[in-house]
Amino acid sequence: MASSNETMTNKNSTSDIKCIILQQTLTGKREPKVTTIPKPPAPTDDEVLIAVKACGISFNDVLARYGLLEDTPRPPFVPGFEFSGEVLDIGTNVTNVDRGDRVVVITYFSAWTEQIIVKKDLVFKIPKEMTYREAAVLPVAYLTAYILLFEIGNIKPNQTLLFHSAGGGIGVALTQLSKLVPNLTLIATASSHKFEVLRAHIHYLFEHDIDYIEDVKKIAPDGVDLVLDCMAGDDCERGLALLKFNGKYIMYGTSSLLGWSVKNFFGLTKGMSNWWQNDKISCLRLFQDSKSIHGFNLIQLLLRGSNDTRRYLADIMHKIFILYKEGKIKPVIDSVFTFEEINNALGKLIERKNIGKVVIEPFVQAKIEKAKKLKTNTSHGRSEDAHSSSTSGPDDDDNDDKDPEDFQQK
Amino acid sequence: MASSNETMTNKNSTSDIKCIILQQTLTGKREPKVTTIPKPPAPTDDEVLIAVKACGISFNDVLARYGLLEDTPRPPFVPGFEFSGEVLDIGTNVTNVDRGDRVVVITYFSAWTEQIIVKKDLVFKIPKEMTYREAAVLPVAYLTAYILLFEIGNIKPNQTLLFHSAGGGIGVALTQLSKLVPNLTLIATASSHKFEVLRAHIHYLFEHDIDYIEDVKKIAPDGVDLVLDCMAGDDCERGLALLKFNGKYIMYGTSSLLGWSVKNFFGLTKGMSNWWQNDKISCLRLFQDSKSIHGFNLIQLLLRGSNDTRRYLADIMHKIFILYKEGKIKPVIDSVFTFEEINNALGKLIERKNIGKVVIEPFVQAKIEKAKKLKTNTSHGRSEDAHSSSTSGPDDDDNDDKDPEDFQQK
Repeated sequence: MASSNETMTNKNSTSDIKCIILQQTLTGKREPKVTTIPKPPAPTDDEVLIAVKACGISFNDVLARYGLLEDTPRPPFVPGFEFSGEVLDIGTNVTNVDRGDRVVVITYFSAWTEQIIVKKDLVFKIPKEMTYREAAVLPVAYLTAYILLFEIGNIKPNQTLLFHSAGGGIGVALTQLSKLVPNLTLIATASSHKFEVLRAHIHYLFEHDIDYIEDVKKIAPDGVDLVLDCMAGDDCERGLALLKFNGKYIMYGTSSLLGWSVKNFFGLTKGMSNWWQNDKISCLRLFQDSKSIHGFNLIQLLLRGSNDTRRYLADIMHKIFILYKEGKIKPVIDSVFTFEEINNALGKLIERKNIGKVVIEPFVQAKIEKAKKLKTNTSHGRSEDAHSSSTSGPDDDDNDDKDPEDFQQK
Repeated sequence: MASSNETMTNKNSTSDIKCIILQQTLTGKREPKVTTIPKPPAPTDDEVLIAVKACGISFNDVLARYGLLEDTPRPPFVPGFEFSGEVLDIGTNVTNVDRGDRVVVITYFSAWTEQIIVKKDLVFKIPKEMTYREAAVLPVAYLTAYILLFEIGNIKPNQTLLFHSAGGGIGVALTQLSKLVPNLTLIATASSHKFEVLRAHIHYLFEHDIDYIEDVKKIAPDGVDLVLDCMAGDDCERGLALLKFNGKYIMYGTSSLLGWSVKNFFGLTKGMSNWWQNDKISCLRLFQDSKSIHGFNLIQLLLRGSNDTRRYLADIMHKIFILYKEGKIKPVIDSVFTFEEINNALGKLIERKNIGKVVIEPFVQAKIEKAKKLKTNTSHGRSEDAHSSSTSGPDDDDNDDKDPEDFQQK
């Protein structure tokens, strides 16, 4: 309960709440900082007031932290796109949730706070059996993965799929959801230290930053049916080169931007690869080869989306809940940090150390991460404990200790 | 029956059959010519021998005639991508059709002939109530339209659709199929003399070759959800400019190429617009706007497609037959010509005079086209008879006179 938690914060007054802001220093650098802000007012007609329990971190948060995400508010602002919590109060027009409900929310920024007011549209009651931590990491990863595979990608049995960052939050969601389609061939890139864990679930693994074109051509001589690219840059060129006649390439992230010292998303600086300066493709060539190039940008969808778009996201969210209840998906929590540990939490993603999602919570106590066995069915039969870990905080549900790292549901 | 028809041809010997070939003259120009070739041999294991009754003409035939279609065989060759006919003989492995069956076929060239041997995969028995003429014009128009709207476009209720050549074969199929989706807003271009007929079925009409961008922006201020472009060139630029955030643009033809004196599809000649020389679009921009750019090329699909692709086309063909039997679609026959009149038939498409499809038949007698009333429900209440006409040939079924121009099924 938010009221009981309040005693744990170092707030200036009882009407203040804790949050993380991204601020700009005098030298122009951005950095996250824990601070207090006034408690939100009562919700108006279509609004919901929520006590935040857990927040997910995604790679967009990393890009926003370094000023590499377009259409980010001017600092200082509260980052974060997803959180779970308990409904404290609702406006008069709100019927989809009620006071005391356990909910998850996807939002255009502002998630990393102790209490928040949001519009009712993207607030969803979570299944009883779902923990707050699981709920908090669901929206960005599973909405994205579901839309990529089934809405845009329209993946079919027996096809070949290439994707990147297989150990990341979206990568794990893609891996789990792809098991719903019979007989897919999964080809993915990941950091090599994750191979041991991922090998049980993905047929062919390649390291980031190597040119895998020739190897993939041996696996799929006719090319790949669907390329899901969160990297852009060189991986865009490779993905397009590997695309089958009639295939689809979807860019849904630009995380390789982090490797370039760019100031602004579309600005040019020295050191950028040819691709970032000249990423053009020919419509006529697409026509000739019956190929498709898609962009999918969840953050822009949240910012610019219409009522229809919000309904669309809500529909998919409900499908994801059903898959969860059927045991077909299960969010993998890599680790949990407090708000105060935000730099460590972001560091996990920046250094690509996480397998699954990283969570931050307003009030969990920092703990040394306790290593856990990760269930895999690799032929090696040895457990991997270095790169998957979890902490339990005092506010978290018991459920979270059940099996947070059960990577793949069957 | 083919045997009774044979007496009508000017063939050199009883073992010869009539066909149209596209030949290259001594001056390098291409022209179609009626000639005779030896009768095909008996079909081998997976083949079907068919007596052709009627052939459809599509804009790809026009492009092929002028050497503007990529991957066309070297002249001389038999053009044509679709035909209907009666099965004369089958190979030992053929189970999907039998001798005497009335069938329709989609093929990579070779359709415009009196008898033909084809692989069994894309031979389909037609519904009893379907005429040979209706069947002959079904594959290119309705497969394309179905794939554009429902497979790639994934059109949803309440969306806005922009397409071109609304009076052409694919345009009519798009118009009919779009009525399956509730509350679409249809915006299309067409030749102005077709407006009177089309106005009953399409909400907003614009002339070819004008810049309709500002007008469409007034109709759809947020942009268009789905752009279906068979023109390329300037219409590609316009389509991309009008695309909504999260929208889809599909190029499925390049018919504006005909307006340019180009020798080779990807070659450059003076007089080409900027677009044809520089049709590039940015992947990053697509990502930022969540947009999609697709190419769909039915001819390349027929040439390069796998067994999966053929099964895919077959599945859709069966869906189209069901829609036909339910009265939800009905092919519109603009006019019927004999093989000998091939230049007049192609001329109809080149001059954009047709509403619906143009048919050629090996043995129908040339007739002065007889004008018919076209059922429309325009508020003007007057019938349009100048631009839709039909002839009946001696070989054609009675059915064809029923209602060939009933543009829109309800």
